[in-house]
Amino acid sequence: MIKMVILGAGNLAQHLYTVFQATESLEVVQVYNRSQRALSYFDSVQTTTSLKQLVEADVYVIAVADDAIPTIANKLPFTDRLVVHTSGSASMHVLHKKNRRGVFYPLQTFTKGIKVDFSTIPICLETGEKPDFKILKAVADAIGSDSYKISSEQRRALHVSAVFVNNFSNHMYRIAHEICEGNNVPFEILNPLIQETAHKINTLTPYMAQTGPAKRGDEKTINDHLEKLDKDIHKEIYTLLTQSIAKTYGR
Amino acid sequence: MIKMVILGAGNLAQHLYTVFQATESLEVVQVYNRSQRALSYFDSVQTTTSLKQLVEADVYVIAVADDAIPTIANKLPFTDRLVVHTSGSASMHVLHKKNRRGVFYPLQTFTKGIKVDFSTIPICLETGEKPDFKILKAVADAIGSDSYKISSEQRRALHVSAVFVNNFSNHMYRIAHEICEGNNVPFEILNPLIQETAHKINTLTPYMAQTGPAKRGDEKTINDHLEKLDKDIHKEIYTLLTQSIAKTYGR
Repeated sequence: MIKMVILGAGNLAQHLYTVFQATESLEVVQVYNRSQRALSYFDSVQTTTSLKQLVEADVYVIAVADDAIPTIANKLPFTDRLVVHTSGSASMHVLHKKNRRGVFYPLQTFTKGIKVDFSTIPICLETGEKPDFKILKAVADAIGSDSYKISSEQRRALHVSAVFVNNFSNHMYRIAHEICEGNNVPFEILNPLIQETAHKINTLTPYMAQTGPAKRGDEKTINDHLEKLDKDIHKEIYTLLTQSIAKTYGR
Repeated sequence: MIKMVILGAGNLAQHLYTVFQATESLEVVQVYNRSQRALSYFDSVQTTTSLKQLVEADVYVIAVADDAIPTIANKLPFTDRLVVHTSGSASMHVLHKKNRRGVFYPLQTFTKGIKVDFSTIPICLETGEKPDFKILKAVADAIGSDSYKISSEQRRALHVSAVFVNNFSNHMYRIAHEICEGNNVPFEILNPLIQETAHKINTLTPYMAQTGPAKRGDEKTINDHLEKLDKDIHKEIYTLLTQSIAKTYGR
């Protein structure tokens, strides 16, 4: 049994708590949070608002906002234990070196209240010491996740990549939604196209999957589209992404 | 039985031919194409390279590049028959008015060689005359597709929206692929996130589904990301889309 303490009570902390507790080989023995209020979610485990009262565990998982990680790590009242954070962008070295350090970063978007299937979520692992990697790997295995050895620099690259595929793709959907609403067209018509666009990536590289007027260099359609767009920011985005696609295909 | 002639031999023409022939109530009686070579795909149906030899049918489906639609429609050697095009951006009125006009636009991305499931593809329908709408609706029903009555103006809006959700989202994947390659990270790690981002749209509006540093106004992460990006065009895209998201959420 791997004993775990979770530090933090937000979205990710809640998801991790739920999935850890559902396994046979992991046990969350305590959840810490600065304020009591947020701890109400964790009703069947010991909770505390005092770092001094932290109990002994095999892994301390810090799941808080990036800026708060060093503060918590510095204040931990023990040494030589395995302390990991869960951030995509923070370096492992923001953790204080008085403890053994690591990173356990699940690469997924977590929405409050929406259940996630961890067996489909890749976990990026990093540790300062080799034996600790096995512990984190065992945690990932226990929740059914694929895991990858990823350095802090690689993780930074993944994190910015994730902004493109997640935040920015979603913003493309949002813009389409606005255009549809402005023209009394149900946005739902686009849903199969959205799903297929994502689905194609299972069999083709994005480079191979690209279609459309920007790739073809179809100036007439591009101009028609720009004329149809009402908002300046939409025109600007359309123009820049069209240029970028054209460049990708050597136009 | 609805008798159909397909004009064109490209990607979409092939997909339509295959799905029409698989039904019990539709029959492709002829395929026309300007050049013989491209007609080799259609081996179990009468083909022709001469518009003068077109046989009688209930619907003539023009599936060619947008610029070529009026030329073909003008040259048709008959009048008062139902002639439709399949374009997302061309108006119904590019078809010559000597025939009854319509549009049969399947809103999906078609890749050569990749089989498509038409039962998941919405078809945008438009006709000049009301009784013809029923014919096109019957064609859509026969192939198991949902269909929508969509005017030429609405279709233009959908077409530009499709560029955002399909072409531009795919370009976001492409940029992520480049960043991953530049940092020796397997792009596959991002696949579950890509799928989940598209999947979320089934239950949340894109407005509600948005997450990330741009929405939160997390300047530190935004600056970290910009610093991590090597290519100027990637920085430019990151900056513009971050501004657009920030604006959407009133920052």
